[in-house]
Amino acid sequence: MPELRYNRLNDTWVIISKERAKRPHDYPLIWEDKKKVDKKSCPFEPGHEHLTPPEVFAIRDPGTKPDQPGWKVRIIPNKFPALKPSEPFFRTSEAIHDLMGGYGFHEVIIDTPDHEKHINDFSVEDLVLMFTAYRERMRQIYSERNIYYVQIFKNHGKEAGKSLYHSHSQLIALPRIPKRVETQIKQCRHYYREKERCLLCDEVSFELREGVRVVHDNDHFIVYTPFASAFPFELKIVPKIHSDDFPSIDDDMIFSLSEAVRVAVRKLDRLLKNPPFNMMLHTSPPRRDLPYDPDYFYQMDRLFHWYVEIFPRMAIHAGFELGTEFFINPTPPEDAAKYLREINID
Amino acid sequence: MPELRYNRLNDTWVIISKERAKRPHDYPLIWEDKKKVDKKSCPFEPGHEHLTPPEVFAIRDPGTKPDQPGWKVRIIPNKFPALKPSEPFFRTSEAIHDLMGGYGFHEVIIDTPDHEKHINDFSVEDLVLMFTAYRERMRQIYSERNIYYVQIFKNHGKEAGKSLYHSHSQLIALPRIPKRVETQIKQCRHYYREKERCLLCDEVSFELREGVRVVHDNDHFIVYTPFASAFPFELKIVPKIHSDDFPSIDDDMIFSLSEAVRVAVRKLDRLLKNPPFNMMLHTSPPRRDLPYDPDYFYQMDRLFHWYVEIFPRMAIHAGFELGTEFFINPTPPEDAAKYLREINID
Repeated sequence: MPELRYNRLNDTWVIISKERAKRPHDYPLIWEDKKKVDKKSCPFEPGHEHLTPPEVFAIRDPGTKPDQPGWKVRIIPNKFPALKPSEPFFRTSEAIHDLMGGYGFHEVIIDTPDHEKHINDFSVEDLVLMFTAYRERMRQIYSERNIYYVQIFKNHGKEAGKSLYHSHSQLIALPRIPKRVETQIKQCRHYYREKERCLLCDEVSFELREGVRVVHDNDHFIVYTPFASAFPFELKIVPKIHSDDFPSIDDDMIFSLSEAVRVAVRKLDRLLKNPPFNMMLHTSPPRRDLPYDPDYFYQMDRLFHWYVEIFPRMAIHAGFELGTEFFINPTPPEDAAKYLREINID
Repeated sequence: MPELRYNRLNDTWVIISKERAKRPHDYPLIWEDKKKVDKKSCPFEPGHEHLTPPEVFAIRDPGTKPDQPGWKVRIIPNKFPALKPSEPFFRTSEAIHDLMGGYGFHEVIIDTPDHEKHINDFSVEDLVLMFTAYRERMRQIYSERNIYYVQIFKNHGKEAGKSLYHSHSQLIALPRIPKRVETQIKQCRHYYREKERCLLCDEVSFELREGVRVVHDNDHFIVYTPFASAFPFELKIVPKIHSDDFPSIDDDMIFSLSEAVRVAVRKLDRLLKNPPFNMMLHTSPPRRDLPYDPDYFYQMDRLFHWYVEIFPRMAIHAGFELGTEFFINPTPPEDAAKYLREINID
């Protein structure tokens, strides 16, 4: 029996197709990586720092110098940026059309110096370094006056849009809040107005009590398959305690997050044989230094609840999905959670 | 210089990347079709009607019988439907989560009896038959009380999610209005309230006057690359005169539409060497037989303006696009229109 399920956070609906329910081995289970590039010509290799633009941030061994080896995570501007900090920030129109200047940041986070290590092999320590770099760079960029949102994401595997072999994440800082984020913040606000509770806090406590969609949890985080998952084996990694602002979390939280993400990614890897996926970090827009005004959009953010989501990319979104934003998911999230709970990762 | 452009109809923004501007030959230009299936085992072949569920509509030669050869377009229920008319229509909740029954229609429109003919080879006459079948079946389904939207779409090529070799379109009839359609209707309504004019009527007359994004036009339709195109070489095919309701158009309009779509599809085919694409038809939700109430959502539809859109799928949407609904388009629509205008199709 198919079912339509509501994703309150995104204000979208999903068709969960129970009859054609796909089990893990109904998916291809043979995934191509981005074509392997020889270490010698890889621009992300230690010793090849001169092949990239100068670094803007790095976590490095004591005593090593910028743009030299000795780094553990290295952040550089994208060589072909979609947006640039040197572009002017402006808003204007061209007759009936509205446009803005291409101001912003587009950076690459080289999350390991190891040419052959990918996120499915990352240790908790590797992930701690990666998330720490995310946090530090986000703090820096959020101090820019005209940046309204920072999206950090990781594309793993060719079908997920990975662009270069050596493991990396990307950061795009935007001069306005994107639609999906605006919708999520509005939905959190509506929910709060009605219930005086946080939407994701409610979801987390319900899922923990219910158990059927939970894959893993630790002191600070829960990993679960959302009730209205748009993608088969979709995962959400959410802090258990309300927190709207990823850049403000402490090292203890970073460690817990890394443990939770390691379990999530390894379970996907073992169950679905290194599937392609996108991982996205969603957090509040930067705080604006203004007197509090409940109707001012950029102050709605305090009701948001930051989280990480993972979208496995085992099916192509075709005309129906692009035309309607309605998704068809052939693996019920309750089944996905069961398979993922049962798979052994060590 | 990159630029951010606003898509008023979808209420989304797009980054138009002028610096990394991709010309047609910067794209792969080698596209795989869905693996060719032998005619003998193709369920969509004339003479193989017993391999599919019984037809629900067909355009056939006089004197031929249902589920027998002699059809020119044949519509059948999908063998693995996402939604079914036999499912109950209901709305309910499961504790904090909302859901609905899986009532609806999911059908396949076999738009040609010819195993080897694809939409890029369709004549105007082939397209007239296809769009006539769309219209007739839509009229039938719109009379169902609990259907709130019908999405018709065509996936061409493997990267666009085509599921079977033999050319076909699909129809999904939903028990609620999808998010993207809701947004578009709301945007049309806001625009009308402010200007007392239709959003797409204004866009059409502006683009015709401006000319720079126009690819083709005929008596009743304009083909153009939208100002805030999310996809490279994206096309919109829009009636020049206001019309909110595709199922009500006459045969003369169907002919003009077919001529315009033929030019659009052939130009894409010749320029980009048979690229994968999705084609979607967007129209008003069914009219509800109720006294007029301006605040009732389902009566906003009269301000909508139906259109066809074509999304070429030459790049994968990765974490940034999925996380934000912000798109990066590396081919400015003005360039795309110029290339498409110049290419010869006959």
